[in-house]
Amino acid sequence: MKIAVLGGDGYCGWATALYLSNRGHSVAIVDNFCRRQWDHELGVQTLTPIRTLSERLRVWQELTGKQIELFVGDVTDYDFLFSTIKALEPEAVVHFAEQRAAPYSMIDRKHAVLTQVNNVVGTLNLLFALRELQPDCHLVKLGTMGEYGTPNIDIEEGYITIEHNGRRDTVPYPKQPGSFYHLSKVHDSHNIMFCCKIWGLRATDLNQGVVYGTMTDEVTLDEALINRFDYDEVFGTVLNRFCVQAAIGIPLTVYGKGGQTRGFLDIRDTVRCIEIACSNPADRGEFRVFNQFTEQFSVLDLARMVQKEGKKLGLKVEVDHLADPRVEAEEHYYNAKHSKLIELGLVPHLLSDSLLDSLMNIAIKYRDRIDSSMMLPQVNWRSARNDRQVRAAAVGVSEEPRLAVVGGNGSKGNGNGRNAAKPAKRRVEYSKR
Amino acid sequence: MKIAVLGGDGYCGWATALYLSNRGHSVAIVDNFCRRQWDHELGVQTLTPIRTLSERLRVWQELTGKQIELFVGDVTDYDFLFSTIKALEPEAVVHFAEQRAAPYSMIDRKHAVLTQVNNVVGTLNLLFALRELQPDCHLVKLGTMGEYGTPNIDIEEGYITIEHNGRRDTVPYPKQPGSFYHLSKVHDSHNIMFCCKIWGLRATDLNQGVVYGTMTDEVTLDEALINRFDYDEVFGTVLNRFCVQAAIGIPLTVYGKGGQTRGFLDIRDTVRCIEIACSNPADRGEFRVFNQFTEQFSVLDLARMVQKEGKKLGLKVEVDHLADPRVEAEEHYYNAKHSKLIELGLVPHLLSDSLLDSLMNIAIKYRDRIDSSMMLPQVNWRSARNDRQVRAAAVGVSEEPRLAVVGGNGSKGNGNGRNAAKPAKRRVEYSKR
Repeated sequence: MKIAVLGGDGYCGWATALYLSNRGHSVAIVDNFCRRQWDHELGVQTLTPIRTLSERLRVWQELTGKQIELFVGDVTDYDFLFSTIKALEPEAVVHFAEQRAAPYSMIDRKHAVLTQVNNVVGTLNLLFALRELQPDCHLVKLGTMGEYGTPNIDIEEGYITIEHNGRRDTVPYPKQPGSFYHLSKVHDSHNIMFCCKIWGLRATDLNQGVVYGTMTDEVTLDEALINRFDYDEVFGTVLNRFCVQAAIGIPLTVYGKGGQTRGFLDIRDTVRCIEIACSNPADRGEFRVFNQFTEQFSVLDLARMVQKEGKKLGLKVEVDHLADPRVEAEEHYYNAKHSKLIELGLVPHLLSDSLLDSLMNIAIKYRDRIDSSMMLPQVNWRSARNDRQVRAAAVGVSEEPRLAVVGGNGSKGNGNGRNAAKPAKRRVEYSKR
Repeated sequence: MKIAVLGGDGYCGWATALYLSNRGHSVAIVDNFCRRQWDHELGVQTLTPIRTLSERLRVWQELTGKQIELFVGDVTDYDFLFSTIKALEPEAVVHFAEQRAAPYSMIDRKHAVLTQVNNVVGTLNLLFALRELQPDCHLVKLGTMGEYGTPNIDIEEGYITIEHNGRRDTVPYPKQPGSFYHLSKVHDSHNIMFCCKIWGLRATDLNQGVVYGTMTDEVTLDEALINRFDYDEVFGTVLNRFCVQAAIGIPLTVYGKGGQTRGFLDIRDTVRCIEIACSNPADRGEFRVFNQFTEQFSVLDLARMVQKEGKKLGLKVEVDHLADPRVEAEEHYYNAKHSKLIELGLVPHLLSDSLLDSLMNIAIKYRDRIDSSMMLPQVNWRSARNDRQVRAAAVGVSEEPRLAVVGGNGSKGNGNGRNAAKPAKRRVEYSKR
């Protein structure tokens, strides 16, 4: 199958592109490298030393003989997207090409607007390009479980049947997203549903849970293929952060009580879910929603698991409860359905089996690259302007002038592990903040 | 009360600004005149000869001694909006400053993107400006009944209580909007609800029905204060169009079967509803939704009413059924609640009482200005590119070169009534299209 992977240089996108290529699909990556640019802006970097995309693709071809095409450009640029879709004639488009971090969207007004405009316009452009050029192409769109929020009733897969005043209808599941980023995904979902209705497009909205892990069969083939492992407070997800904190012996930072419960999945399941969706396309005119996660955990569940596994590795792992920088329920009901992908053949990898291999061992392997200052939350949901600071190079030098990130160039020079793994000193800084 | 009316040069905005001013409130208008610009772009104009805003405001002051402040600029320009809110320190902001026509948003990709970016970014900017400068200010935001679509269950006011698998929750009412414009309002609603939650802002979302009529007590004071009366296929609403068609003896253009049922209200009720909302502000942190309409009608109901009233005026009114250019149910269940504004004191004007005075007599009075070519639908929901044409000046000269609207300047010279009211010839053109 001919598949375009938009955002194929990112975390999920890269793993997906390799997996689909390995499975014999004809894959093209479309990317503008904005994800790498945001690392520069924020003064953070992935734990794993990822290579340039051109090197990644060269090594992949050398190792497997398989070529992945590359189109460099921005999906919000319609001329570029139009000509790319025209040249590719894809049977499926997997759309990862969005700003994907809730904290990034909550930094300030500019980041909120950037996130919503980037995501909404990119998706609108894609819908129009498909309508004009490839109306039979299947759009596989990455949504998020965060679109639903945490209602006090079971979360269904996209739609809910309501009985009301003696009548009944099946309607889109009500959305209560928790950040400007999550809102952008809700906007996308509404736009896509509408275009399926008026133009007969076919789309699958994958409401994905929190993805963890780095290792897939493909990226383990060679160090040059290694995937991102983000653990910073903006782009890092909670489980990655916990493993990195455990690896260098600083306390796990639980926000609030830690009762926040979400759906999670291994990145090996992400790539499999994408292939399942591509191989079982939605019908013409159908807007289909799958909840793409395999297990539910609370943040405190995860902290406890990391604590337990850390013990096996001889690590002493403490847990800190920070004031929650987000506005969210710290304890709540959560029961989200996720059977549709299972019915289509997904066999989940369970966290208990992969926590050591795919997460903690990676954190330990690259321990020298850890910058513990990257993990403290600096973006507060309650504030309209988070003057997020990039730390100066030396650890503990809090008197250094702080450089505002936005509108300037954040400078940060401790990317080579010179200052990593100094837990005691870091601990002091925690208390100060 | 100090009230800013964003979009105060538009149809609802102008009537509202005058009404609030007359009621003793301190009113400021914020507008960038894009609504007038869109008339130029589309080659259409209001039936009524509206004056420049500066003349309107000058006459209003001469007549009443009341001054309405004016801030000219674009709400998507944050510097402008920020400085305006800072200078004004309003207690309430009434936000009409959005692209408001479904057909305009459906012309093509550029118009879809313009509509969503303009509306979403303008509202995000306003939310941030209020958060930063006037967190206690009450946001009165114009939404639309079209956000709900036409579900097979009763439509509630913003929220619905659902019993599901033995549990219960009150959640945002599921939205099924029917155009990129209606989608933009759904995006706004989600964004505003979120900002009320995280920042404790206070907001009222007025999901307004289709507004009809031109006359309010204030605009009748002087011809220079006259309000818009749009009847063109893009910005005109169905009842205005029917009255204009009746006035010049051409058939009413019902789309499809005409069973499309919507909520309607007199513009005199619009202005009253706005004042009611301002005078009864939402609580801090509350996102409140009122369904702002007074009566439900199907399109065919309206056609029949115009036919009947036309007869009283000696007009022979026929009804044509055109293929529906929109993708919508032509027959459906519709029962939308609208009691909250009534409970707060709204006493509705009923259509049966105002159809003659506020609509048909206006259409007849300005009959010489009617351009019947403006009423034929040229924007089809099923097409991704509607090369909407501006007609050449002379009626019936269909061989004239057609000028594409978008990206060029639509030219059209029959605004002075020279070619109006030639029903027979127009009728032929209908069949051709």
